[in-house]
Amino acid sequence: MSTRPSLSPTSRSTVRRLRERAQLDRAALDAVLDEGIICHLGIVLDDAPVVLPTGYGRDGNTLYFHGSTGARSLCAADGTEVCVTVTLLDGLVYARAVMHFSANYRSAVIHGRARLVTDPEERLHGLRVLVEHMAPGSWDRARKPNVKELAATQVLALDLTEAAVKMRSGGPNDDADDVQRGGVWAGVLPARIVWDAPQPAADLEDDVEVPELVATRSRPAVPTFAAPR
Amino acid sequence: MSTRPSLSPTSRSTVRRLRERAQLDRAALDAVLDEGIICHLGIVLDDAPVVLPTGYGRDGNTLYFHGSTGARSLCAADGTEVCVTVTLLDGLVYARAVMHFSANYRSAVIHGRARLVTDPEERLHGLRVLVEHMAPGSWDRARKPNVKELAATQVLALDLTEAAVKMRSGGPNDDADDVQRGGVWAGVLPARIVWDAPQPAADLEDDVEVPELVATRSRPAVPTFAAPR
Repeated sequence: MSTRPSLSPTSRSTVRRLRERAQLDRAALDAVLDEGIICHLGIVLDDAPVVLPTGYGRDGNTLYFHGSTGARSLCAADGTEVCVTVTLLDGLVYARAVMHFSANYRSAVIHGRARLVTDPEERLHGLRVLVEHMAPGSWDRARKPNVKELAATQVLALDLTEAAVKMRSGGPNDDADDVQRGGVWAGVLPARIVWDAPQPAADLEDDVEVPELVATRSRPAVPTFAAPR
Repeated sequence: MSTRPSLSPTSRSTVRRLRERAQLDRAALDAVLDEGIICHLGIVLDDAPVVLPTGYGRDGNTLYFHGSTGARSLCAADGTEVCVTVTLLDGLVYARAVMHFSANYRSAVIHGRARLVTDPEERLHGLRVLVEHMAPGSWDRARKPNVKELAATQVLALDLTEAAVKMRSGGPNDDADDVQRGGVWAGVLPARIVWDAPQPAADLEDDVEVPELVATRSRPAVPTFAAPR
């Protein structure tokens, strides 16, 4: 894998607006991708955009997706330009003026040509990366794909060579006049995804323990829901 | 507003795969849109897809977006085919076999031609719908847009005439052989967005109370984080 001076080699992915939010830094891209659970995959089908939520996984400079061989959208993505976007919502920004309401977020927008993975070893590797991204620790615990399952599955790869990372954090950017006038609550309502207690399958045997990586995911690192002031 | 027999008048939005997950029901579409916070807007720019996260609001059969007049992507969306996708992640499905791992989710995929809103009254209405979707109760509390702010803002509308709602819920769909073999934890790890305690802006006066609709949003309806079994 080569190192790259910038994630935005073309003008398309250069963030044109709000340049201060652009984090042209590979670590920021990886952080967004590694924290996200699903992505939104955009393709062009019959000259129109189609945006579908799907799972993904990252290995170094490669993003992997998968889908059924019967899924028209995924077939269409092979060799064509795609756009993959991962967005983490961190909060809502309440301002004194309606036009300054905003959201705190981190997002990664990746452009490139998707590649259908045909090499059997890379296919299996891509599936492993996908499953481990979604459910860490699960690949080695669960049954591996059989020939029939593999035949029904497409794996696509996308190189992380052209991407834009954007983020917004902090409080509202109100006009000085509005701040001075006062009287309107302004601030941030933080948002995050939580995992609740695991629900065992109805037909699970009684003696199978919840795996540690499942149990710990559902426990908050810090106490939550402090009383609002 | 006319009533429609189906949300999928064309083959494009007919869910081809996993037909049992399609909910061709207007109430289901509204429920997903009303619960979502952000959407992913897909457009075609220079023959390639671009997918961007953005806010939105729904009024009846119309979805509204907004953006800076300087945003190239939003300018490009006027009169062209767009795809708007809202996804709610409800959980991760752990299975006995890696190929049966899945996610529980609800998603709405809307296709149509975006329309630049030029009528001043509808522009203001669209902005109100947007702000009230994101931050209920805020429009009447905060300062309304002034002439300069309105001039710098584009409002786009999208009719909800062609949409596909999909959802998955419940536990893993494992093969009988894998269930019988046993020994692998299977179940659902439920996911949801929570709002933490509101953080007042650094320059907020001490005597401004957190609005009720902000405070209640940050309180969970039910006790959370029961100990995993």
